[in-house]
This record gives sequence, C-alpha cells and structure tokens, in this order.
Amino acid sequence: TATGVQTTSTKATFPGFKHPLDPLTPDEIVAVSLAVRKYTAENTPIKAIRFITTYLLPPPKKDVLAFLGIPLSTGSKPEPAPKITRKAEVDFIDVVTGDSYNTILALQTGVWKVETLDKLPDGVQAQISVEELLMCEQIIREDETVIRLAKEVGVEAHQIFADGWALGYDERFPKKDRIQQAIVFARIGEHDNLYAHPMDFVPVVDSIAKKVIHIDWPPQFAKNSDNISSESSLNFTSVGKDVTLKKPTTAPPPLQESSPDKPERARIPPPLEPQDFLPDLIKKANPKFKVRDDIKPLHVVQPEGVSFKMDGHELEWQKWKMHIAFNHREGIVLSTVTYNDDGTLRPLFYRLSLSEMLVPYGAPEHPHPRKHAFDAGEYGMGTMANELALGCDCLGQIHYLPGSFVKHDGTAFLIKNAICIHEEDHGLLWKHTDYRVGGRSHAVRSRRLVVSMICTLANYEYIWNYYFYQDGSAELEIRLSGILQVYINPKDEPNPFGSIVAPGINAQYHQHLFSVRLDSMIDGLKNTVVETDVLQLDAPTGSIHNFAGNGFFTRETPIAKQKDGARNYDVEKDRRWIITNPDHQHPASKKNVGYAIGMKGGVCKSMAKPDSWVAKRGGFTQSDLWVVKDKEGPKGSRIWPSGKYVPGTRGEHQEEFITSWVQGEDNLVGEDLLVYMTVGTTHIPRPEDWPVMPVEMLRVSFKPFHFFTANPSMDVPGANDSHSGAAFPNGDAACCSNSN
Amino acid sequence: TATGVQTTSTKATFPGFKHPLDPLTPDEIVAVSLAVRKYTAENTPIKAIRFITTYLLPPPKKDVLAFLGIPLSTGSKPEPAPKITRKAEVDFIDVVTGDSYNTILALQTGVWKVETLDKLPDGVQAQISVEELLMCEQIIREDETVIRLAKEVGVEAHQIFADGWALGYDERFPKKDRIQQAIVFARIGEHDNLYAHPMDFVPVVDSIAKKVIHIDWPPQFAKNSDNISSESSLNFTSVGKDVTLKKPTTAPPPLQESSPDKPERARIPPPLEPQDFLPDLIKKANPKFKVRDDIKPLHVVQPEGVSFKMDGHELEWQKWKMHIAFNHREGIVLSTVTYNDDGTLRPLFYRLSLSEMLVPYGAPEHPHPRKHAFDAGEYGMGTMANELALGCDCLGQIHYLPGSFVKHDGTAFLIKNAICIHEEDHGLLWKHTDYRVGGRSHAVRSRRLVVSMICTLANYEYIWNYYFYQDGSAELEIRLSGILQVYINPKDEPNPFGSIVAPGINAQYHQHLFSVRLDSMIDGLKNTVVETDVLQLDAPTGSIHNFAGNGFFTRETPIAKQKDGARNYDVEKDRRWIITNPDHQHPASKKNVGYAIGMKGGVCKSMAKPDSWVAKRGGFTQSDLWVVKDKEGPKGSRIWPSGKYVPGTRGEHQEEFITSWVQGEDNLVGEDLLVYMTVGTTHIPRPEDWPVMPVEMLRVSFKPFHFFTANPSMDVPGANDSHSGAAFPNGDAACCSNSN
Ligand SMILES: [Co+2]
Ligand SMILES: [Co+2]
Repeated sequence: TATGVQTTSTKATFPGFKHPLDPLTPDEIVAVSLAVRKYTAENTPIKAIRFITTYLLPPPKKDVLAFLGIPLSTGSKPEPAPKITRKAEVDFIDVVTGDSYNTILALQTGVWKVETLDKLPDGVQAQISVEELLMCEQIIREDETVIRLAKEVGVEAHQIFADGWALGYDERFPKKDRIQQAIVFARIGEHDNLYAHPMDFVPVVDSIAKKVIHIDWPPQFAKNSDNISSESSLNFTSVGKDVTLKKPTTAPPPLQESSPDKPERARIPPPLEPQDFLPDLIKKANPKFKVRDDIKPLHVVQPEGVSFKMDGHELEWQKWKMHIAFNHREGIVLSTVTYNDDGTLRPLFYRLSLSEMLVPYGAPEHPHPRKHAFDAGEYGMGTMANELALGCDCLGQIHYLPGSFVKHDGTAFLIKNAICIHEEDHGLLWKHTDYRVGGRSHAVRSRRLVVSMICTLANYEYIWNYYFYQDGSAELEIRLSGILQVYINPKDEPNPFGSIVAPGINAQYHQHLFSVRLDSMIDGLKNTVVETDVLQLDAPTGSIHNFAGNGFFTRETPIAKQKDGARNYDVEKDRRWIITNPDHQHPASKKNVGYAIGMKGGVCKSMAKPDSWVAKRGGFTQSDLWVVKDKEGPKGSRIWPSGKYVPGTRGEHQEEFITSWVQGEDNLVGEDLLVYMTVGTTHIPRPEDWPVMPVEMLRVSFKPFHFFTANPSMDVPGANDSHSGAAFPNGDAACCSNSN
Repeated sequence: TATGVQTTSTKATFPGFKHPLDPLTPDEIVAVSLAVRKYTAENTPIKAIRFITTYLLPPPKKDVLAFLGIPLSTGSKPEPAPKITRKAEVDFIDVVTGDSYNTILALQTGVWKVETLDKLPDGVQAQISVEELLMCEQIIREDETVIRLAKEVGVEAHQIFADGWALGYDERFPKKDRIQQAIVFARIGEHDNLYAHPMDFVPVVDSIAKKVIHIDWPPQFAKNSDNISSESSLNFTSVGKDVTLKKPTTAPPPLQESSPDKPERARIPPPLEPQDFLPDLIKKANPKFKVRDDIKPLHVVQPEGVSFKMDGHELEWQKWKMHIAFNHREGIVLSTVTYNDDGTLRPLFYRLSLSEMLVPYGAPEHPHPRKHAFDAGEYGMGTMANELALGCDCLGQIHYLPGSFVKHDGTAFLIKNAICIHEEDHGLLWKHTDYRVGGRSHAVRSRRLVVSMICTLANYEYIWNYYFYQDGSAELEIRLSGILQVYINPKDEPNPFGSIVAPGINAQYHQHLFSVRLDSMIDGLKNTVVETDVLQLDAPTGSIHNFAGNGFFTRETPIAKQKDGARNYDVEKDRRWIITNPDHQHPASKKNVGYAIGMKGGVCKSMAKPDSWVAKRGGFTQSDLWVVKDKEGPKGSRIWPSGKYVPGTRGEHQEEFITSWVQGEDNLVGEDLLVYMTVGTTHIPRPEDWPVMPVEMLRVSFKPFHFFTANPSMDVPGANDSHSGAAFPNGDAACCSNSN
C-alpha cells in the first residue's frame, strides 16, 4: 500500500501517454477529480465527495489494435488507425447520503468532460479504499466499548490495533451501509508484530457513520470428554476430532440477542509474548539471537546493461513486445503482447492480469465464515502495492514503473517504484550432446524477463512474477509470504479448523484462490479453446488392438458452446487446455496454432460448498477453467468474475458474474474469447510459516503449441560465461567449448 | 556419457575415502577388477570377463550413522562407532558362455578379497553398458542385411547410425540372450542431427554373439476413407481418429513368419532435410540464420567466494550437512543429510536419489510397445552423466565432484566434472511490511544450494537439480531437454499416436515417469507416513454445523500396514503426505514433527494398463506414492522398485519389485521407512520441442511440517545488495532500508 509513501510530488518519472492503454497519470487523476467536483457542484445536489477509484476506461479492443498496427489476424493488414478518445472512470461516494456513483469522463481538447453520471443501486458498494481500511482501525481505537472490552483482558487503549476487512457476508446488516469488520490485535511495542496478539472479539464498523455498530463474539470448542451439555452445544465428531462447539449453532445470532456484554465464552487475554520479524526486535526479545554470518555476497552484474528497451509503458525484449500498466485493482496488467516471429508480428495476449482472488477460511462458526477476502475486488491489489527498492526486492539492473491511484480527496497517491522490470538467468534452456565418441554438444542458457510487483494485504504478502522466456513461453508465478491470519486459542482448547503455530496462536485453515484472466489473441482475436484428454486405449492388454497394453492417445474437444464454458481439471486424463486459432495452421502438422495453458500444479479445488456464501459470491472458485466470449460494452470488456462491485455482495446480480456468462448457446469456436484460470493453494498452516511465511509458490504457464514452426529459441547464443570460476583453489577451470 | 571423455588419468581431484559412503575411486575400481580376475582365474573356469558394473556396497545403515555420530533419534546419544569394512559389488559377464555373475569383495588390510561369487540365474541380465550401447551401433553398421535394407531407401552404409536400446519386452527371444534393439537413423554429415532422418526398420542385435538376429518392421496406418480391406486390417475408430492399421493385429508376428525381406508396408526413404541444433550447421543449411545479438551479458559474481564448505564428498552449507556421491545407476546420491537446528543435530534424509525411471511410448503396434526405457535400471543414469564445463552448464562459483564407473576391460571411466555444486539467488524468501503509516518492512532473499548433474540418454537430456533452501526445505527439480525420440511418417499418412513435429517426423506420445526414492530419517530412523486429506464438512450449507457452507478440515491417516503402502493422489481432497516421527513433537502444536512431500504438480498417472508390459515390468508407475519398510540384507537396503536386474524382465521375480513389498501386515508406524514418489510428465510432443526441446520441468519438494519451532529462516540477513542498479539513466537509485 502507499500509506508509507511520499505522495506530494507527481513529477517523478511517470511516462506520458503514448499507448492507448497507458494508465492515468497522477496529474490526470487530479484533473479528473476537479472535473468531477465541478460537474457535481453545478449539476447535482452532491455536497461532499469521497473518491474511491479513478482509472483509465480503456478504448475498444479493435481500436487499440488498429492504433498500434496489430492485425486482427496474423498476416492480414491492420485496420486503419482510428481516433482514440482518452476516457476515465470514477467511483465515488456522497458522504452525506452514503450513495455511490459511477461517472465516465472523456478528455476533449485538453479538458476532462463528464459524459455519464450514474447513481449506483442501493446496496452496491465500490471497492474499499486504503483510507477506509485505515479509518476502520481509527474508529475502533476511539470507541469506548472497544476500549472497555480490551481493558477487560489487560490491553490498554493505545495497544489496540486492527486490520479493517470487508464484512464478507452478513445478512443481519443492511446492504446499503458501508460496513467493515475489524480484526483486532494488541500491539505491545511500536513495531511489534501485532498478529502475535490476537484478540477475542470482532467489532463491526460503519465507515460513513464512522462508528462501531456491533461486537461479534466467536464461540469456544471443547473436547467431548469435557462433558458438555448437549442442549447448548454442537457435536463435531463428524470431523473426526472429538470436539464440541459450546453453542447450538454455527449461525450468526440475531442482533437483538447479542451484545458487547454477552461474550459467547469466557474472555481470553491475548498472548503477549513477542513474535517479531524485524531482526532488531527479535534480538531485543532474545539476546542470543544472531543473524547468520555465513552467507557470502552474490551479485548479479550486467556490465553492458539490460537487454530490454522501454518506451514509456511499452517494453521490447528479445522478440516480445508488450504494454505494462499499473491498475489499482489488478496490479500489473500486461496488454497487447505480441511476438516477432522472424519478421512477422504475431498477436498473442490482448490482456493478462489477476482479475480476482478469494481467500476463504474454513472455520464454520460465526463470525469466522465472514472471513473470505476478495483481495482484488474488495480492496484492490494495485492499491496494496509496495514501494520497491533497489537491491532489496529485485537483484541486478532494474527498471521501475510507477503506479498511481486516487485518494479520498481527489489527489493522487503515487508509488514511484510499483512495478519492477529486470532480467534473470534461469538455468539451462536446452542442451544436447551427441554421446558418440567425438560427438559435439551444445547448451543454451535461459534468460528470462521478469515483471513483478509485491503487494501487502494487511497480514499477507503476495509477490507477482510474470516471466517471459526465449522459447516463446510465459508464466505467472505467485509467491505467498507475509504473516498468517490468526485467531486466539487458549491453552488446551481444541481448534478443529486450524493449526497451532505458536502458543495461543491458531492459524485457521484457508485457501488462496486466484482468478487469472487472459484475453487471448493467438494469431488474432478469433480463438477456440480445445480441451485435450490423454486416454488409454479401451482395448484390453493382449487384444489385437492393444496387445502390449501400452496404447494411449489424445482426444481433442473444442469448447464449442457457452454453456460448456466451465471446465474442470482431471488428473486421471492429464487434461489440458489449448487456446487455438482455427484460421492458422502449423506448416508440418497442419494442426491449428495454439498456446497451451499449464496449470497442473496450481489447480486447487474449492473447499466451500457450491451453495456456500463463498461460492455464491465467488463462483469462479467452483471450476478450474472458464472460457467466456468477450462482450464489450460502453464500460469495456467483461473483466470481473465476481462482479465489478464486490463488497457486500450476497449472490444477487449473478448476471454480472462469470457463472452466468457460461450459460446459453453462444458459439465459442473462432470467437473473441476470455479464459479465466482458477489456481491456488489450500493452506494448512505450519509453525514454520510463523512469524513470517517463507514463500509458497504456484504457477500458471503459457506455452506455444504448434504455434512456431520449430523451437523458437534455436538462435539463442550458446552458454559461455567468462566470469564463472572454480569455488576452491585447484578446481577445474576448463571452460565450455560452445560455439555460437 | 563418458564416451567423449579422456579416460587415462585417474588422478584428477578425486577425494579419498573419508565417509563410509564415498564411492569407489578409479584406482579402487581397477584394483577390484584385478582382484576379480585373479579370483576367477584361480577358482573358476571363466576365461573372459566383460565388466558391467563395479560400485561401493554400502555398509549397514546403523553402522554408517554410528560412524558419523548421527543419533538414531534426535537428542539421543549416537551409537558407539563400529569398524567399517569397505566393500565392492561387481556384475560381470562371462563372454564365452554369456553367463552373468555377481561378486562381492571386501577390502582387507589394503587388499580386495572376493567374499562371494554368484552366477545369476539364466535370463537375469545386468545393466547394459555404455560400451554395449555403442557396440549395438557398430554391429548393425557392419551387417550386410542392414546395409542392403538401408541402401534400398537411398541410405549409404556409412550413413547408418543407431541408438542401442534395451529390447524392452519380446517373448519371441530367449531371456538368456543379451539382446538389444537398434533404433536406426541416417546421418548425412559428421555432426548432423541424425534424429531428423529416422528409418523404417528395427534390427535386433545379440551383443554376445555380436550379430543382427532379426529385423522388425513397423506397420502402416491409413485413413478409413482409403477403403482398407477389413480382413487384413484393424479399425481404430475407437481413438476417434478415423484410422485403420493395415495389419490385423498389434501383436508381434511369429519369428518364422517375418523376414528382413517381408516389410509390413512399402518401404519409406527417410526425410533427409537437415534439422540441426549446432548453430554452425543451422547456418550452413540456412545462410540467413543468425544467432541473436540482443542478449546482454549477465554475470553472477561472488567476490568473497562460496558459502559452502567441502570435505571430500561431504558438504556443509548454512545449517545443512550432507554427503554427495556419484552412482553409476542413480547419478547423484545424497546421503546422511542432517540439519543443525540451533546446535542440535537433526537427522533428515538417510538417502535421496532417483531409484528408477520409465519412458513408455503410447503407440500400440509392434514393435513400438517395446520402447519403454528404464533409463536408470537398464542403462544407468550415472554412466550417462555429462562432463560439465564452467560457465556453460552452471553460472557462478562452481565446485565439481567427479564420477567413475567400470569399463568392460576392468579399467575405470572417469568423469572429472560429473556433479556441479553451486549457489543461486532465488528471489525473495520472505517479506512483510506493516502497511500502517510509518510501518516498517523487512525482506529476505532466498539463497539456494544447487547440486546438479546432466545426463544424455541417447536422444534425451535430463537435468537433475537438487535444491536446498534456508527455510529447511529441499527440492528435486527435473528438467527434460534434448531431442525427441521419433519415427518416420510418410506424407499424408495418419499417425494416431504421435505428433508431426516436422515434415516426415512423427514424435510418438510417451510418458516420463520417475521414481524418486527417499530413505527418510526425520529426527531419527523411526518414521510414520501420514496421509492428510482436506475435506469439506458433510453438513449442508444452512445447517447448524455449517451455516455458511465454508467449513473444511483435515483428516490424518497414518499409513499403518504394509499392504496399505501404495497410495494415490486425490486432487479433490488436496491429498498430501507427511513423513512424521512419532517420538518427537512440536512444542506448541504437540503434533508429531514431520516433513511434507510436495508432488502435486508432478503427479502423472500411468497411461499403460495395470496388466500391460509396462506395468508388469514397471509396477512403480501404477501408484503415486509408495511407503515401504526397509529391510537390509547382505547386499544393502531395498532400493530398486523394478528389480536390481532390469533388462529383459517380463514381470517374473515380482518378489523383488516394489509391488510385492507393499503386501502383508507388517507395521509401518514408527519404522525405518522408504518412500518412493512417482512423478513425471505425459509428453504430447510439440513442433516447438524440435529439433531440441526447451526444458520441461517438474518438481518434488520436502518441507518441514511442525518440525521447527518456527520459521527457521528468521535469521537470514536482510536483502541489501549494493551492486544492483538502475537499468537506465535517471532511474531511481534509492536503496532498500532493510536492517539486519
Ligand atoms: Co495462507
Ligand atoms: Co519426452
């Protein structure tokens, strides 16, 4: 997030507008805010505005391609370049009425003009802003009840801290209100790891009224052997853990039956032992602690500089060309990605990004099920981006791109180093040796381009690494780090839905489910997704068709109708998906050119039921792959699988969800398609993830499949690094004999 | 392989014997050969010996641990150090009779003495040697029939080349004979890529008699529309590909019915277009070809040297200590791996290696099903290891370990640089930022230790990277490269079981299935493998037990009996396996300490039927995980899942296979266990894999799970690289403020 960042200068190194998808600059954001204020003052009764999001409204896809000279189908002439009108879209709140608005502006002869202004339907909530998240903490810190409840368990007012969360799902509160839940912690020193001191109550906060409106009390589990009365309790032997919930239901209690003074259980003082991640603080708590001194420096040096070129937001590296933008919601957005195949410009990806994600927790007892964070749709991955620093987050020769988003007051936050671009050596790309006596050998090392960003979502860190390779493949690697979301666990009480990672600290089971969105244009906009299964021959071993029993083949099924757009991985069939272009064929195989999606290691089945709150709100988690026909409207393409406005949704407006896009008979063969990949990880926390998690990784890859005539990296120069040396004296210093 | 290598000097930098698992040195191999010759001359009628394998017979596990001072259970006193007798095991062939022998020798007061000499049962075949593989090519090149058949399709005698393969499975030939099949190619220039010119017949060779004994002829597929007579053909519409085999069966024809002059189809001249991988040859064929010149140098420098120490074969790096050996069969073998946990020596892995692998092809028609190579058991991964070179195969400061194995004549092959040891930066290891205004941030980069080897298995290359991390995790990454195994495909003929990767070149579908073997000693030898499933609560959404529908939990099942030792991955349950020690618990969670196996992305279901030739010989491919009680005998532990002697097996002697080890009631809780992980990839070849494959990767990881009190990498110094810089002038040069 930008909260720790200087936000005054809007100069920095922000590239100007050259490409139609260049994000709004800080100056543009400010100008747009002024235009909105002017318009609303002159034309509406709106008195006070809280800006929530201000961002580029992208021009129509075909206009962008025509503007850039990218053909609609490889080899054809690009369409004539159209005039591009720069547009902005803004969500804001009238803080007097609490009403939300969406407005679209266009830049007309240097001036931003409002084109449309729509009041959003009651209950539709725009993204929760960074300032609102901070405000949530502020509100509870000043609340008398919260202060009293904290004091009852030994926590002083100044020690109260909280992460503001979306409310998730709670039908007891009106949708119209702008409500958050506060996950409360004690903090025992200025930079202390507050997550080490979870507290036992959950305030609910109204960020328009700026007050605490309710307190929720999680209940208690006990061992069955503790002889719990059956009337007021719920047996959970079904989970095989011999536990009872000391409460007759996991459902939320009616508001009128609950009160700040009616905890569901005996109060629990938070564990106060420090569990820090800052080395100076660790040392303070444990004087014997010392940082390892046996790791020798390792530097990456590029004496002739980097191999990529930047023109504003446009990057060229090897045969790749792409536009790299920052988006308040998705973070990195890669657009108009093309490949120069021996002089032919080949379109690949119109747009690639994280479109949504969901982190549902697995504890069924109220209020824990409310914890299912849509980190992109509710908060915005971009607004949570770290300010990056040289030699720290990336190694080597680095280029940064800035990111910017609007503040409540209409000015702009600026993250000067939001996106990091650099190169890495990635080991061998290919090698072959003719093993015969006198046979020759050739090895080529893999250089990869990395476009990365690091985001802090309260406790968690997400590291997004987009990789591009010299063999025409690309990959998104997601690394998870940061601090576990935890709840308090009194000694000797069972916690059937979490791991004890330290004394008193229960890290509840959860999933991280990502929706990676690819707007493909493999050799052009008209694409078909083919599902390929690998199948054993039916015929039995010993039969004339399959005498040795080894026969297997592939079955390729184009995903032909929109109603068949939701697909599931099948490990038994080694199912895979390939985005093809039916208008272009490989010269030798005659197969349609394509790119294969690699998500085998990232597939993650939803542990929430198909009719759960989680699934009603985040239907994208219920299938592994979604193929959807794009339909551009006045506000652009289909993007958001769980709706544009995510906070507070309860499964209504399903027509705006991906689940409803995969209905009907629409043709999907040779159409302008979107592919959404659901990947993730089920996180059963380990003590080793505490106090900070070493990175957990998952990947989605895109590999050419009958797209290039042959291996497109045959022209990468042979490996021959003159700076490598023997680790020890007397080591063998013979160098490789690769010839280029 | 060592065929291109100087083999005269046995001095080099071979470390002497310090650790009981140090492999035999070249001098020891020579001494052992002399001892075998002397003994057989004096005590047997054996007249002429072909040495096949000579290697260390490891001392008993507990003796090794005691010798090294590693306790049988963490915290207990190591056993008293025993006397270790150095032993060698040898397989050789009497080339007069064709009989095979196994002999064990012991080093007694500086002299190798034969302890046992056993004639192997008729039909049991030792590994096929590098020299025998080369001999196979030599034999067919000199064979009049082969020369005539080649000439018939325009290939001159000097253009005939072949890869010697094990015969696979062919009941028409006596098991007693030492037989190979030759996969024949034409070669049109000295260093030409011969795989671009596959030929249409398959000679069968006897390497004792040194002659071609048979010619096999693959048949032809046609389109159904070509109106094939139904009597002499076989319809394959079941594969959905509208094809007919122009032959009534996929079974091998009786030997008496087949002849070199009775091809199953019209002869096919091989495609002769060059498809080279050496840049000078590519340029010769295509003068417009040029190597990329836009990739700037990138160096890894370690001005203060490496962070690891070597003492012979023993390595210490960060808190890891391990023994690294070369083995003719498995390649890299990592043994006695321990972790120094704040002063406590904690045993982790007794031994980790590739124990077997299998590459079955999916074409059902004879003779293609014979192609299912056991690259470790039939040929030996170690004997195929590349001689590595600085700056070529690895970047940075490198230490190499040599490898050695016996030649037919009893002298030693020496690969001076068989195993590469170096360090790599691996991006962020962990990071957290307190997002509050003024909040602090800390980031730590991941340094990893790499122990690697590259092996050339005829056409294919395998790259083995064992990684060790600072957070206590370890990983085996397997990279596949090299050249596809291909067959000829005449224009316009269908190939229902392969991909056309270039004109006339059919790359048949196949799988690469690896058996990774871990002899675990997590906090000691007594381990239990726990299968953990993640399960949704049964109770429906809206019910009192699961009101929100989000509840999920874990079910942990110890694998308790030997008959339950074969386990399968279940993606729906996100099944995972953890190797635990029931005698040691995590201080906070009270759970048994353990290491979790990560193989989700590597799981690969066998496409051969359970009663196929492939499965009869390679039963390990039929389950994803195998848990087996180790039983040490006079020849060491259980190691080889498809038997010690693999060539020519047909499923007999199942008692020596992993499939029979998982029978019976033996207890597996708290026992000395072996875990075999079957991972791999189903390879549906792409034209982009041709003429050389860019690396395909798969991984198996081992992560501490309730093993350490907390994240063991909290003491890694903060990231702060002074050599990183801005890619372009005017870039932001602000450095990170991490404090250590
Ligand atoms: Co997590
Ligand atoms: Co392959």
